[in-house]
Amino acid sequence: MSRRPGRRPARVAGELAQPAFRQVSRPYAPVEVLSADHVAAIHEAALSVLAEIGMRVLHAPARELLRGAGATVLEDMVRLDPALVMERLKTVPPSFTLEARNRTHDLKLGGRDLIFASVGGPAYVMDADKGKRDGTFAEMCDYLKVVQQLNVLHQEGGGPFEPMDLPANTRHLDMYRAQITLLDKNWQTQSLGHARTMDGIEMAAISLGTTPEGLCNRPVLLGIINTNSPLQLDVPMAEGLIALAGHGQVLAITPFTLAGAMAPVTLAGALVQQHAEALAGIVLTQIVRPGVPVLYGGFTSNVDMRTGAPAFGTPEYAKAAQASGQLARHIGVPFRSSNVTAANAVDAQAAYESQMSLWGAMMGGAHLLNHAAGWMHGGLTASFEKLILDAEMLAMMAAYFDPIAVEPADLAIDAIREVGPGGHFFGTAHTMCRYETAFHIPLLANRDNYGQWLESGAVTAEARANAIWKQLRADYEQPPLDPSIAEALDAYVARRKQEGGAPMN
Amino acid sequence: MSRRPGRRPARVAGELAQPAFRQVSRPYAPVEVLSADHVAAIHEAALSVLAEIGMRVLHAPARELLRGAGATVLEDMVRLDPALVMERLKTVPPSFTLEARNRTHDLKLGGRDLIFASVGGPAYVMDADKGKRDGTFAEMCDYLKVVQQLNVLHQEGGGPFEPMDLPANTRHLDMYRAQITLLDKNWQTQSLGHARTMDGIEMAAISLGTTPEGLCNRPVLLGIINTNSPLQLDVPMAEGLIALAGHGQVLAITPFTLAGAMAPVTLAGALVQQHAEALAGIVLTQIVRPGVPVLYGGFTSNVDMRTGAPAFGTPEYAKAAQASGQLARHIGVPFRSSNVTAANAVDAQAAYESQMSLWGAMMGGAHLLNHAAGWMHGGLTASFEKLILDAEMLAMMAAYFDPIAVEPADLAIDAIREVGPGGHFFGTAHTMCRYETAFHIPLLANRDNYGQWLESGAVTAEARANAIWKQLRADYEQPPLDPSIAEALDAYVARRKQEGGAPMN
Repeated sequence: MSRRPGRRPARVAGELAQPAFRQVSRPYAPVEVLSADHVAAIHEAALSVLAEIGMRVLHAPARELLRGAGATVLEDMVRLDPALVMERLKTVPPSFTLEARNRTHDLKLGGRDLIFASVGGPAYVMDADKGKRDGTFAEMCDYLKVVQQLNVLHQEGGGPFEPMDLPANTRHLDMYRAQITLLDKNWQTQSLGHARTMDGIEMAAISLGTTPEGLCNRPVLLGIINTNSPLQLDVPMAEGLIALAGHGQVLAITPFTLAGAMAPVTLAGALVQQHAEALAGIVLTQIVRPGVPVLYGGFTSNVDMRTGAPAFGTPEYAKAAQASGQLARHIGVPFRSSNVTAANAVDAQAAYESQMSLWGAMMGGAHLLNHAAGWMHGGLTASFEKLILDAEMLAMMAAYFDPIAVEPADLAIDAIREVGPGGHFFGTAHTMCRYETAFHIPLLANRDNYGQWLESGAVTAEARANAIWKQLRADYEQPPLDPSIAEALDAYVARRKQEGGAPMN
Repeated sequence: MSRRPGRRPARVAGELAQPAFRQVSRPYAPVEVLSADHVAAIHEAALSVLAEIGMRVLHAPARELLRGAGATVLEDMVRLDPALVMERLKTVPPSFTLEARNRTHDLKLGGRDLIFASVGGPAYVMDADKGKRDGTFAEMCDYLKVVQQLNVLHQEGGGPFEPMDLPANTRHLDMYRAQITLLDKNWQTQSLGHARTMDGIEMAAISLGTTPEGLCNRPVLLGIINTNSPLQLDVPMAEGLIALAGHGQVLAITPFTLAGAMAPVTLAGALVQQHAEALAGIVLTQIVRPGVPVLYGGFTSNVDMRTGAPAFGTPEYAKAAQASGQLARHIGVPFRSSNVTAANAVDAQAAYESQMSLWGAMMGGAHLLNHAAGWMHGGLTASFEKLILDAEMLAMMAAYFDPIAVEPADLAIDAIREVGPGGHFFGTAHTMCRYETAFHIPLLANRDNYGQWLESGAVTAEARANAIWKQLRADYEQPPLDPSIAEALDAYVARRKQEGGAPMN
């Protein structure tokens, strides 16, 4: 193993290459892995599941909302008639805009437009220096700074990992304040329980100089709602859904349908269940507030049937992501997917599993790519190096989504004539006036020849990523914030801490 | 960097997971990155290049063949009228079968059917133990044994690297004998010059108990013809093309159009030139022997404009591969693409660049994925670990190409009812009778949790790949060969060595 990754720290040569922050749009038709008949069959089966089996809804107010809209409620089981479901889907907006406190970072979702969100929710942090560990608030702030620095990331994903040095009942307040003040990008809120969700809404309102009521027709926050698959919506998630939808904020309803564990072992069956659970959640959002923006979340993956371990970035995942996109388009709801891997190291496996999920999501027509950068260990850990690796792969995807220009000058017949057989294009006028912007410039990839690469330390992609995030963190400058808003946020956090924060769920 | 790849050799737990050898078919529509108008514009521009500028053809007999078919020849420049080109395309078969000496390894190409070929042509070999180096014949035989062992590889790709311990003028004879005797899969021949190509045809004929004439309506060999971009066909390649086409064997005409170097800096311009050069080569095959199988080769990539270094697996590469597939379908010719990377280590970069090219090729509708496994360093080096990494990614692609089954039992409504809200699917009858074959089983991916992974040595994907190829080599058994054929091959090689082999080009 004489050619192992370099022992010495990697150097980052010159300025880091990053295209400017920009909206990404998909110019190509999505890949369809299901026939129209099969899409309809899965949709119809999901409607039967909701009509004949139903969802268990553990939150009484949510059950009452559903009953009031025409659902049949028996104890905690809620059955939804197909006509009720289809009627409620009519008010879902096909596209919407999310506002950021820096308005040049506003985001469009729907149609061709999509966004990349950084990892949200892991328990642990890791980097190549210290491995996996409980994270601190200071480390979380470092992570947020790198997310702010990476132009390809459109949205912060809800707190990259738990800052375990902060008390659990008030931790979310410090996280929100960091998300608002360290970034000027749009951010996701936590949605576990009424109190945490309302704190997110309150602080988002403060950051924009308004009140929670003032946000009602102004989407600025996005929250993820996971059903407890199979077929269950628990109290904290129902509270989060109702609070966000009630304030006109965006939900992504995402069943966690791991085929062979919390969902049928067949992909079609797992998709039926995903579709049923997503439909139930989407219907509830539209009952709470007709017209509130909502996304259809697809997260179907599979377990490793030899061990029962969750598997991600599998061929099944890619197919399920593209099938989920078809199901979301079938019901006219924007689609959320993710960039996932089960790998333990930021190595080739992490890259190829993420690529399988990226292509599944991007060519599946995703509008929100959640956990787009930083996700490791099946979602248990946020990695600093994976954040850079993913930013590289996302920027490549964005460049892939720039269509080939085919204007007459692009066809280059004159340049071909000028160079002639056996010639070289480098010095031609056609090349010289285009070469600086002709091709995507990578952040992470190394294109040295092998001799040069050995000479400069045989640094692998993971070690280069380590140097890059450190340089980005060092180069970070905090985006400006009106001091009166900063003070109001501080006051809110202080008051809520005094009140004891949020109850533990 | 405390979590670096393990220092101790990786263990391979239990039997290696490999699906059986099987034909791969693409069930989904290809991705179209160009509009129909743009495809037509590039095609028309390429026809103008051939009509107005022409190709330099350095081989006089090839020029005479083209002149005889109606081309305008002035010195070494050959101009082709659009009508002549379009007329000659009519005889290209849209699909064909390649015969292997083990007939269960016969291969279909065209329509939905595609094949994966192992890396061919690099100068060097590398592995994690000894790094990059000149390779020996013994090492080349080891490489071929692993290619034979990997069920996902359909075709041997023409000799994985140069055995530098053998004399250059007779090396190809030892390579052919190794390709024939160590594998029972179909194999690619060398096509550089008349003598080398004829030796391939003669030895292929011997291996099947026939003569070169007996192969004429029986495709068993495939040779790659690279034009010397821009717009040039040299003597050795023209000789190879004429010899193979003359014996009814399969050609892949592949311009090496690196945008910004040997082709225009615009992708559209590089595609115009690629299309022109490919058309010229394809026309020549059909003049030599109307109806001979031929593939349209797309290899357009770009240079790194900061350094001039070739770049592979870029966003531009993925777009160009899918555009090339459209151009090939536009003229009704099967399509060849490749799995490429510029990475120096078998790390995340190698994986994501290969994935970009894989998705470009596979969803671009490639029928031959050349260099599908083992290619490193922009094609200069064949890697043992990359061979395993690529086999993993190819098997995932093949599994992605198994469409989702949507029969009534797959929808699993009864299983969903049986398990009910909050339950678990693992023990159900629906799961138990399907779980063993429900999901693709990886060869390389590790799905241990982080603790287990650390405990068992923190082995990265590259180190696992190292253990896997060694186990495959150890498990290798030579496929049977009729002793009289082995003797005839030996006699042929001995005679040709005595004659001095092939002249050096």
